Amino acid sequence: MEPSSVSRDTRLAVTPVAAVLPAGGSGERLGGVTPKQFCAVQGRPLISYTVQAMERIGWISDIIVVVSPENMETMKSIIEKYGHKRVVIVKGGITRHRSIFNGLKVFAESQFSNRLLQKPEVVIIHDAVRPFVEEDILSKVVMAAKEHGAAGTIRPLVSTVIASAADGCLDHSLERARYRASEMPQAFLFDTIYEAYEQCTDYDLDYGTECLHLALKYCKTNAKLVEGTADLWKVTYKRDLYAAESIIKDSLSQQVCVITSVKEAVAQAGFLLHESLKSQIKVEAISISPSINDSHLQNIFSGQCYNFVCINDKKYDIQETQQLVATLEESNIPLLYPVVLISVHLDISENISFHIGMEELTRIKKFAREVKKKNILVYSLLIQYK
Amino acid sequence: MEPSSVSRDTRLAVTPVAAVLPAGGSGERLGGVTPKQFCAVQGRPLISYTVQAMERIGWISDIIVVVSPENMETMKSIIEKYGHKRVVIVKGGITRHRSIFNGLKVFAESQFSNRLLQKPEVVIIHDAVRPFVEEDILSKVVMAAKEHGAAGTIRPLVSTVIASAADGCLDHSLERARYRASEMPQAFLFDTIYEAYEQCTDYDLDYGTECLHLALKYCKTNAKLVEGTADLWKVTYKRDLYAAESIIKDSLSQQVCVITSVKEAVAQAGFLLHESLKSQIKVEAISISPSINDSHLQNIFSGQCYNFVCINDKKYDIQETQQLVATLEESNIPLLYPVVLISVHLDISENISFHIGMEELTRIKKFAREVKKKNILVYSLLIQYK
Repeated sequence: MEPSSVSRDTRLAVTPVAAVLPAGGSGERLGGVTPKQFCAVQGRPLISYTVQAMERIGWISDIIVVVSPENMETMKSIIEKYGHKRVVIVKGGITRHRSIFNGLKVFAESQFSNRLLQKPEVVIIHDAVRPFVEEDILSKVVMAAKEHGAAGTIRPLVSTVIASAADGCLDHSLERARYRASEMPQAFLFDTIYEAYEQCTDYDLDYGTECLHLALKYCKTNAKLVEGTADLWKVTYKRDLYAAESIIKDSLSQQVCVITSVKEAVAQAGFLLHESLKSQIKVEAISISPSINDSHLQNIFSGQCYNFVCINDKKYDIQETQQLVATLEESNIPLLYPVVLISVHLDISENISFHIGMEELTRIKKFAREVKKKNILVYSLLIQYK
Repeated sequence: MEPSSVSRDTRLAVTPVAAVLPAGGSGERLGGVTPKQFCAVQGRPLISYTVQAMERIGWISDIIVVVSPENMETMKSIIEKYGHKRVVIVKGGITRHRSIFNGLKVFAESQFSNRLLQKPEVVIIHDAVRPFVEEDILSKVVMAAKEHGAAGTIRPLVSTVIASAADGCLDHSLERARYRASEMPQAFLFDTIYEAYEQCTDYDLDYGTECLHLALKYCKTNAKLVEGTADLWKVTYKRDLYAAESIIKDSLSQQVCVITSVKEAVAQAGFLLHESLKSQIKVEAISISPSINDSHLQNIFSGQCYNFVCINDKKYDIQETQQLVATLEESNIPLLYPVVLISVHLDISENISFHIGMEELTRIKKFAREVKKKNILVYSLLIQYK
């Protein structure tokens, strides 16, 4: 981790931050009946990926999901099925702004939730249909909001923007370089955005689309604009669901976690593997104590890594592998795809002995067959390493 | 076909129309080294799909593809490999406007091509990275350009557009409903757009992005704006390639062409099949003379239909199937995906006889095995029909 993000994260740890995800849209642009946030991507509703992206971040306390009244039950069952934590469901209004306002009210008005939540200093507003949001951009907008009162993500315009005259002909076109597309996430000092919503008119609530505009109009707060990455795009059309699916598939297959014990020779083998893989795939390498009950590991599990290489120096011992599988199961993440677990038994002894007894082999095979039923594929390798 | 498109197409048939496809972009936004128009989608370069979409339309005479000097050879080989016709390759300039201008020059200045092409009345400008352009929108912009001098496709904005101040903070946001994204295709009276390019400044050529703006600024022509469909989007990022691939796969698998002879009972069976399938997939049904050498059929082949149901009343005769396969091969379209050809032998005789001789069966199987090597999968069905 680069030094700047370390200091940023340290500062964020002491700032109460919450997130509001408006998810009340009807998805008419997708041309389907299911609102896009509830469409399945690789068998899992899109909104569940977005909630997970928020959950992964320790410094976000509460995640408020605002859905239309008819989707309250659907959302409840998604939270249950995918084991989401820290999520509060709030009933949306008839427009986007009204839904966001309802989401903010759970921190200020006790009748909007069964319990009044602790008011955050900064609130993130993020679309439920932008699942690929990373911690880096979230911390950037939160820090900028602390300083400026409001902050929003921007992207270059892909198309030129034009204004049409009443006769349906071109009136004028905007110089593309001077303008930006306003994207999500955005962040605000809670008091600033809440005050803006309290003051704004019914016209704003019914026809407005831009929170940054409300902060400017009612609180004289000029939001800081932060350049976002291309993956922040909004799933709007059916083609975007196709794209989201491909991105998720790609990213899952291109991540591997190398787990070793803290023992020097083993950790060194893990380091070498990490070095040789990192140019091709996203590798996370961790050295943990034999008990494998590590909060870091838990985070990796909930971050949906599906490939593990577990290196130990116990030639035939599958105990560590069994512990890892147990931790995986306890973490209660739904296994949508097969989890691949390669257990590497490193023989670092001097005397060459590749012989493995029939009994050990049977035990390993039996274990692999059992966990395969749970969609976990275990492979064992015995490697002589000097 | 609806009456309005018939009359539109009739009028278009007598208007000389050409198309210019700027394809000089470097694709830096995709994050890869291959410019996006040359990226493979289902094994075929994206630009080939766009050229094909133009070629399919009989009333477009010449298709000018403008590529950067380093991609001239690549483009030549694509044209050869995919059998594109009516395409002229032109060397691009360093910016989009300069490339389009070069493309237009082949109709006006003889040194820009080995032969001076006939000047069109209307010229379509379309991006090489928008492969899903349909005849309907092309005829709409061409008709509007004939009437107004210029016409462009528009789409609603997906994000709010904002202007930033010098300090990187929000200056103001635009009311989303008042603005539109300017998309492609656009069309112009050739003389209008050519005059605009001849008059415009180096600044316009180097920094401008919008042809409609040039027509307005230099020819006082307010372009007619035509609402486009969502599939006109521009392949810009890697996720767009994913989306394009899924759309192409989907559309190929959901098209079927039902071919029958003109004989009444057979044509009737084809009609019934068409009726029962049309709610689920895109069905084209044609009745043709036994020789199967039909220009309509050729069009369907080049339109990349990959599923055929061929109905005949010759119980064991595979002659028609063989002819169809021969026509497919002669049409010289590259078979990127397996072509499925279901040959239905309709038994309309009164006496029940499902018996099929060993000899006929062997002949059919041998034929199917042979063409399978060419990626054509032939299935035979014998159906009793009364």
